[in-house]
Amino acid sequence: MTEYRSENPFGVRPDGTEPFSAQAGATSSPPHATGTLESGLLLEAFDAQLFREQSETVVARLEKHLADFSIRGLDLTDPAILVDAARALMTTEREQIAAYDENRLAAIVDLYIKTGIQVHSPGYMGRQFSGVVPLSGVIDFVSSVVNQPSSFYEAAQLPNVAEKIMAEELNAFIGWDPGSFAMVTTSGGSLANLTALLSARNRAFPGYWSEGGSALTGQLRPAIAVGDDVHYSVARAAGVLGIGDAQLVRLPLNERHQICVERARPVLDAAERRGLKVFCLVASAGTTPVGAFDPLDELAGLARERDLWLHVDGAHGASLLVSDELRHKLRGIEKVDSLTWDAHKMMFTPAPCTLLFYRNRENSLGAFRQQASYVFDAEPDIYTALDSGEKNFECTKRPMIMPLWTLWAVHGRALFAQKIEYLCRLAGDVHRILEGEPDFETLHHPEANILCFRYRPPGLRDEDVHDFQVEIRNRIKFEGNFFISKVNVAEVAALRVVMMNHQVTSEHFRMLLGEIRRAGQDLLRRTHHSR
Amino acid sequence: MTEYRSENPFGVRPDGTEPFSAQAGATSSPPHATGTLESGLLLEAFDAQLFREQSETVVARLEKHLADFSIRGLDLTDPAILVDAARALMTTEREQIAAYDENRLAAIVDLYIKTGIQVHSPGYMGRQFSGVVPLSGVIDFVSSVVNQPSSFYEAAQLPNVAEKIMAEELNAFIGWDPGSFAMVTTSGGSLANLTALLSARNRAFPGYWSEGGSALTGQLRPAIAVGDDVHYSVARAAGVLGIGDAQLVRLPLNERHQICVERARPVLDAAERRGLKVFCLVASAGTTPVGAFDPLDELAGLARERDLWLHVDGAHGASLLVSDELRHKLRGIEKVDSLTWDAHKMMFTPAPCTLLFYRNRENSLGAFRQQASYVFDAEPDIYTALDSGEKNFECTKRPMIMPLWTLWAVHGRALFAQKIEYLCRLAGDVHRILEGEPDFETLHHPEANILCFRYRPPGLRDEDVHDFQVEIRNRIKFEGNFFISKVNVAEVAALRVVMMNHQVTSEHFRMLLGEIRRAGQDLLRRTHHSR
Repeated sequence: MTEYRSENPFGVRPDGTEPFSAQAGATSSPPHATGTLESGLLLEAFDAQLFREQSETVVARLEKHLADFSIRGLDLTDPAILVDAARALMTTEREQIAAYDENRLAAIVDLYIKTGIQVHSPGYMGRQFSGVVPLSGVIDFVSSVVNQPSSFYEAAQLPNVAEKIMAEELNAFIGWDPGSFAMVTTSGGSLANLTALLSARNRAFPGYWSEGGSALTGQLRPAIAVGDDVHYSVARAAGVLGIGDAQLVRLPLNERHQICVERARPVLDAAERRGLKVFCLVASAGTTPVGAFDPLDELAGLARERDLWLHVDGAHGASLLVSDELRHKLRGIEKVDSLTWDAHKMMFTPAPCTLLFYRNRENSLGAFRQQASYVFDAEPDIYTALDSGEKNFECTKRPMIMPLWTLWAVHGRALFAQKIEYLCRLAGDVHRILEGEPDFETLHHPEANILCFRYRPPGLRDEDVHDFQVEIRNRIKFEGNFFISKVNVAEVAALRVVMMNHQVTSEHFRMLLGEIRRAGQDLLRRTHHSR
Repeated sequence: MTEYRSENPFGVRPDGTEPFSAQAGATSSPPHATGTLESGLLLEAFDAQLFREQSETVVARLEKHLADFSIRGLDLTDPAILVDAARALMTTEREQIAAYDENRLAAIVDLYIKTGIQVHSPGYMGRQFSGVVPLSGVIDFVSSVVNQPSSFYEAAQLPNVAEKIMAEELNAFIGWDPGSFAMVTTSGGSLANLTALLSARNRAFPGYWSEGGSALTGQLRPAIAVGDDVHYSVARAAGVLGIGDAQLVRLPLNERHQICVERARPVLDAAERRGLKVFCLVASAGTTPVGAFDPLDELAGLARERDLWLHVDGAHGASLLVSDELRHKLRGIEKVDSLTWDAHKMMFTPAPCTLLFYRNRENSLGAFRQQASYVFDAEPDIYTALDSGEKNFECTKRPMIMPLWTLWAVHGRALFAQKIEYLCRLAGDVHRILEGEPDFETLHHPEANILCFRYRPPGLRDEDVHDFQVEIRNRIKFEGNFFISKVNVAEVAALRVVMMNHQVTSEHFRMLLGEIRRAGQDLLRRTHHSR
């Protein structure tokens, strides 16, 4: 391998035990001499050996945590009690120099670990964040210490190179022309969706960036078409971007909770008659409530026929692309304009790690247009060619690609494909279990690893079904053995499991059903829900 | 301390060495049985003992890195060479199950560390990101593994409590009514500035969120007043929000690079005559190019008199509030409406950790308005009262407060105050050094820890000053002993040092001047810059 270290002409090489030894020459400093800094506190806080001791304290606790496969969900604690517990761990004589105390750190870490949702436990079936692959956390640790902001190549060389490599690796499953697509990382799916919509807005309305929305007087009003189950971040983006969240044109879904292309056309026509100019269509892969995949292939036809930018919010489901078994759910992905892909969901890395793909590189440059001499170079060269600062929202950006690239480098795609395939099979298995239980109602066939259902025991009044599910979900949460979520399906609450943990089996799900039944029966006895 | 663990009624407690032992009951699973998952790859990737070994590999390298006080800047590498080096570290038989190989991880970490800017070295004087306090990286490691998204209390209890505590702790230096201010964390200063401006926009134009900018037909056009040295993220926010970046009203600066309040009034009057409705004034504390602090006290008067929202971009300089010596730079801060504060700059934590403060809590709710049944609860309770999901842009948000709170809990504010005071004194010291060197030009008295200057040796033509500074900066970067930046001051490039590392002394700065002189003299000999 290439040797990257240049020679150090100063030959200043301390023995490694005396942090300030490099300041030896500081005696020639001017008044208020900077060489006279003799802070025991700073010396200690930046001491490398202390860093190792602190790391060992933390690693021992994390190892124990990762080795604990007991079934547990969440220990929900009254915030007031937790505030007191946290305050008790703080240096009380704040103005004094506090000597480092290992017990304090250990207590902080213990409290932190045990008050979180236990995402590595088989009791966790709740949301779309996951127990990370431990190695991805280890690399993220390196990022936290070496602190390389990755919007600019010179500040973070390996992260920028890793982004380029991961873009190529993942595009192999999307199928765009390797010479003309683009990818940037950004801080979460909401920001990726906003960035794509911004680029679409600027393309459709070239004066918008400079002149703003109020300059569009007399023109049709910009609007965005979405599936009715679109993630809230898309409506939020419309509000942020000056489009207006009332200018979302909501397309009806079919019985599989997908955008119904046939019924979409008249809705789009009606929007146009109301004076709206729909410039973008947002599809989901899959939706947040039930994990449905919109029919990208058909929607691409619709988008082409009406000159719409087709953006896919694949925050949750884009990862299915790496599986030979499941890739077909995103059939047509090569025809879309942009794609949001959260690696911190189904690629099992620490959050955030969101990848925003564009079919055409020029579109990736259309979101932001900026000059700032302290970060942007007027004359690009081979080093600035990899900069993403003009394409992503952030100025300082975490090198979020490193955990994903490292997992990919070490394990290849097999790790991801195997885990995703297991989780989706598991959702199918538990769906079959539910179909065999007459007191449970299934609401959809799981397309991925998300499943919604309701507990509807005999005696439950129809008008109480909604509140009953919410109360069961809260009861399960408080009991702390399992963590599940809830969502409205057709405006009535449902219980929701998201299978993110490969240590969950259908046997654990059966235990959950038992707990739901007990909670529900208890609620029926205590309240007036029963007829 | 309170015991938070609830009892586990299932008594499923594996011995901790066999990850899948909790699946013992899985034999009763349905077809495609989920209990039959027997992936060696997954078993290995989630093995707790392997996690410890990987952590030890990484900690040893980071310890060595932190103990190395040699003078070094950046080893700038051709991206093509680095791509090859990174590719060589990847599993080649990607479809096969790769056995974990410690050497591969070690090589990745070595390459990652050595290709970054050496922020913990005295050679680093370059930008506004810092060598983190090692303990903050250690806690960030916990965050990376336990993965608690912090927009919602139930998903991240301690981080939400830590946010509440840090809000109170830091507001003690701002001075707002503890009962009515608010703080949220968000992913970087750019996003915080956008969020504040969004809230200001929504307050001034109540229909904007729903109806969008094109509904403002016939009204005055929204505009934002800024100091001429405002960070590029504010202009970017105007473009994003549908205000239009041409609707920035740039206020002139005085000789100290601060907004000149007297000259601001006629500029605002002229903007009004052009049909602009200025609704917000953005001040800087300090500015990115030179670290100037706008006069907040006077600007608050101007804002009150014209009913403007006064937002302060204190990404860099708000941290000076924790120092008794330096707090006066932000005199008047208690009168502003909102404040962006990057802890990942002058509080020395991993990026991102941005705090956005609002004087009035209601304003913190004005940025976003959203319904989503899978995350937001219709009926708030004591647990959802701490949720920030309605106040910050992100849905999944890193628990970025934990490194800051932990440093504050362990060391108190003394650590921050001492380091910041040292860095600001150092900038003053090196300014005095430059004043004694006739071939260097000083451009401003440093208000904080940022200093811009030019090397102007005899024989340099005036028309070449700009290019000469850029070339020197690049030469220093390539030589790799020091890392500094450049910025345009009055449209002519200047060299810029940002003192972020307390291991830098004025002696190191003298070495840098020597290197600048050598580089400059060499350039003068080789090129046509000299008369």
